[in-house]
Amino acid sequence: MAIDDRNEVARHIVAMRPAASSLQAGRRGFLAGGLAGAAAGALLHPKLALAKGGENLPPNVPEWTKTLGSGVTEKQYGSPSAFEKHVVRRNVEWLTATEQSSINFTPLPDLDGIITPSGVCFERHHAGVPEIDPAQHRLVVHGMVDRPLIFTMDDLVRFPSVSRILFLECPANGGMEWKGAQMDGCQFTHGMVHCCEWTGVKLSTLLQEAGVKAEAKWLLAEGADGAAMTRSIPLQKALDDCIVCYSQNGERIRPEQGYPVRLMVPGWEGNVNVKWLRRLKLGDRPWQHREETSKYTDLMPDGKARQFTFVMEANSVITAPCPEKPLKFGKGFYEIRGLAWSGRGRIKRVDVSMDGGNNWHVAQLQEPVLSKALARFRLPWTWDGAPTLLQSRAIDESGYVQPTIEQLRKARGVNSIYHKNAVQTWRINANGTVNNVQIL
Amino acid sequence: MAIDDRNEVARHIVAMRPAASSLQAGRRGFLAGGLAGAAAGALLHPKLALAKGGENLPPNVPEWTKTLGSGVTEKQYGSPSAFEKHVVRRNVEWLTATEQSSINFTPLPDLDGIITPSGVCFERHHAGVPEIDPAQHRLVVHGMVDRPLIFTMDDLVRFPSVSRILFLECPANGGMEWKGAQMDGCQFTHGMVHCCEWTGVKLSTLLQEAGVKAEAKWLLAEGADGAAMTRSIPLQKALDDCIVCYSQNGERIRPEQGYPVRLMVPGWEGNVNVKWLRRLKLGDRPWQHREETSKYTDLMPDGKARQFTFVMEANSVITAPCPEKPLKFGKGFYEIRGLAWSGRGRIKRVDVSMDGGNNWHVAQLQEPVLSKALARFRLPWTWDGAPTLLQSRAIDESGYVQPTIEQLRKARGVNSIYHKNAVQTWRINANGTVNNVQIL
Repeated sequence: MAIDDRNEVARHIVAMRPAASSLQAGRRGFLAGGLAGAAAGALLHPKLALAKGGENLPPNVPEWTKTLGSGVTEKQYGSPSAFEKHVVRRNVEWLTATEQSSINFTPLPDLDGIITPSGVCFERHHAGVPEIDPAQHRLVVHGMVDRPLIFTMDDLVRFPSVSRILFLECPANGGMEWKGAQMDGCQFTHGMVHCCEWTGVKLSTLLQEAGVKAEAKWLLAEGADGAAMTRSIPLQKALDDCIVCYSQNGERIRPEQGYPVRLMVPGWEGNVNVKWLRRLKLGDRPWQHREETSKYTDLMPDGKARQFTFVMEANSVITAPCPEKPLKFGKGFYEIRGLAWSGRGRIKRVDVSMDGGNNWHVAQLQEPVLSKALARFRLPWTWDGAPTLLQSRAIDESGYVQPTIEQLRKARGVNSIYHKNAVQTWRINANGTVNNVQIL
Repeated sequence: MAIDDRNEVARHIVAMRPAASSLQAGRRGFLAGGLAGAAAGALLHPKLALAKGGENLPPNVPEWTKTLGSGVTEKQYGSPSAFEKHVVRRNVEWLTATEQSSINFTPLPDLDGIITPSGVCFERHHAGVPEIDPAQHRLVVHGMVDRPLIFTMDDLVRFPSVSRILFLECPANGGMEWKGAQMDGCQFTHGMVHCCEWTGVKLSTLLQEAGVKAEAKWLLAEGADGAAMTRSIPLQKALDDCIVCYSQNGERIRPEQGYPVRLMVPGWEGNVNVKWLRRLKLGDRPWQHREETSKYTDLMPDGKARQFTFVMEANSVITAPCPEKPLKFGKGFYEIRGLAWSGRGRIKRVDVSMDGGNNWHVAQLQEPVLSKALARFRLPWTWDGAPTLLQSRAIDESGYVQPTIEQLRKARGVNSIYHKNAVQTWRINANGTVNNVQIL
């Protein structure tokens, strides 16, 4: 039967050839030629052009349909198609002095939906990725507790568990642009964010086991990497929704993301989500460590610095079109696609402007919209071929509206590195290419 | 500061040594010894044993904390830790004659949450995995339509898109056990299922573009693999919720899962979710292809066969404990963990029995519980050390209750291969090992 059907396809190709010129002219060709007739009313996007010059015929039965493919023992652990080699994390050489204390970026423009594949989640390390033997790894809970405790990985996995889909964003995301730098593409302007399903034990469960003393108000989290990456976290947040995680997107956490165990601090800046977690200490005040004094503070125009800016406020970006995803079909139908997120909870609405912020259109949000997770938004759009300033702005359930870069600079000056969540502007040029621009 | 803190941990280790014997005796040691005092009331699981003989001390500052790890350019596309090499798809040699027309299994016991990592999603092919060049691939829509159409991948990606987290199950999942075979472990009894976030264009959108003629009642879907895998699907389902997908868990579909494009038919048996999709044909009756006549039919006791058993009815399995995940801490606290799913919609409830089905306890469901997706269930449990028959049963929003193997055999005999969704029984032995058994 399969062979009969392949013959039928071959016959069908011949039968379709006369229609090729209509297809070449696109949907408007159908309408103009009167071929669509009464059915035209049923078309979802009357201006959708389906044709591309010289590409109207399907291939003959392709080689891969005539041969056996690879078997089920070939890849016990699979990987993407060889044709997808361009979808990778990328770093920016000038951004950091060494590869071990550096960053790379999630290829957002090539991703769909809200789950980031673990293989391309951006990395930020302070002393590189340690290779940790889970059998030797221990997590210590001590300080202002009734019972200091030491957990093996087996202990941690044994506790009652929870799973949650969460975004994680480095507060430096977009930070290069405070002073007006223009990163070359969406991967670099917004790629310090990812979203995965995380599983682990609630931090509150572990703290309950240890018994937190009444005078304890802060928690210290320390990593087992060479930097012993260390941050102070208010106890209230620790008891609220933090998770000591050993699993990411179903499997054990990837080395770059903190294998064998990391802290997830939902909605808070990436660096407090300490990776390779080895120690939790309870105390009555913050520890004033390097990463909360000389780093990860926001210098304000008056010379003072905001020290603890934990929450990642609402942010969004259009991932198509964008510099890496030009409008390659000329004028006509496109779906505008993007991501929005907020450390305060659910995204309530995303607006899209095609005129540099004068008029806004409400985008569709993909359900389910989850709290402190990426939200995928979409908006159908017909491009008229004219230069366009494309923007998105996120509104979260707290009512917070993502600010313009102008508003952000007015409030905070240009000395900051962190927490730049300004509306992003993409300029679409008449030839369909897209540039990163700032409207001031 | 980091160095100070490491010293502090070292001091702390010394300080904890006197408590080691209490830790060794576990939580009950704390209670018996009166060390917990008033705080004991705050403990979530008073019987949780945290200690393991001789393992009470944390290591000294480990080697990986004293050195630099790997940098951000090392792995542009990441992979799991070398310590997780055992978490892979596995096949069963005796199950199929060739590797190209064969199956392997998702390592369910090693996974958490509901998302299956793309690298370990089970595979079922009829002629192996083709390596398809997306630039050359075409999808043809023809038959009873107003306008036969040919789509490039660019065309498909350009359409309005949707994302959805969906389970996909081979109807042969567990099929080896109809006649009483006992597969060796949870990976093999239930591993022909996975759950990913899928993105693509609604099939209804493409059909609207082509214009479905009034007399069309069925859809033929054909793959571009060497088997030209072909199934007939009622038009009603095609227009309801089917998706022509190009993305899986955020990135383009893996080769084994249908790169560059596959059909997703939510809740229906795996084989109709045609991979490497190259052709959709509209007609007024099913095509009676090989995979819906000689294969994928259910032989009943009276010698007749059910031909189109599309929906995957509610099913569930406990993934911990299971044969691969014995109770290795002796008696005491364990969290029972498992997965449930239904092709009819949402899982409404999962019951767990520790006595072979006489008494049932309602498990906790991890929110959000999504329609036609895996649902993660959990139940805290204190094992008394006695042999135990452990079972789960799923109830979906249609009210359907997952049957016992006895009920299933009574209704359908033992000639079937497909659609075995019986309650699974794990026998826990006094030494904590777990066996696959059937209660008849």
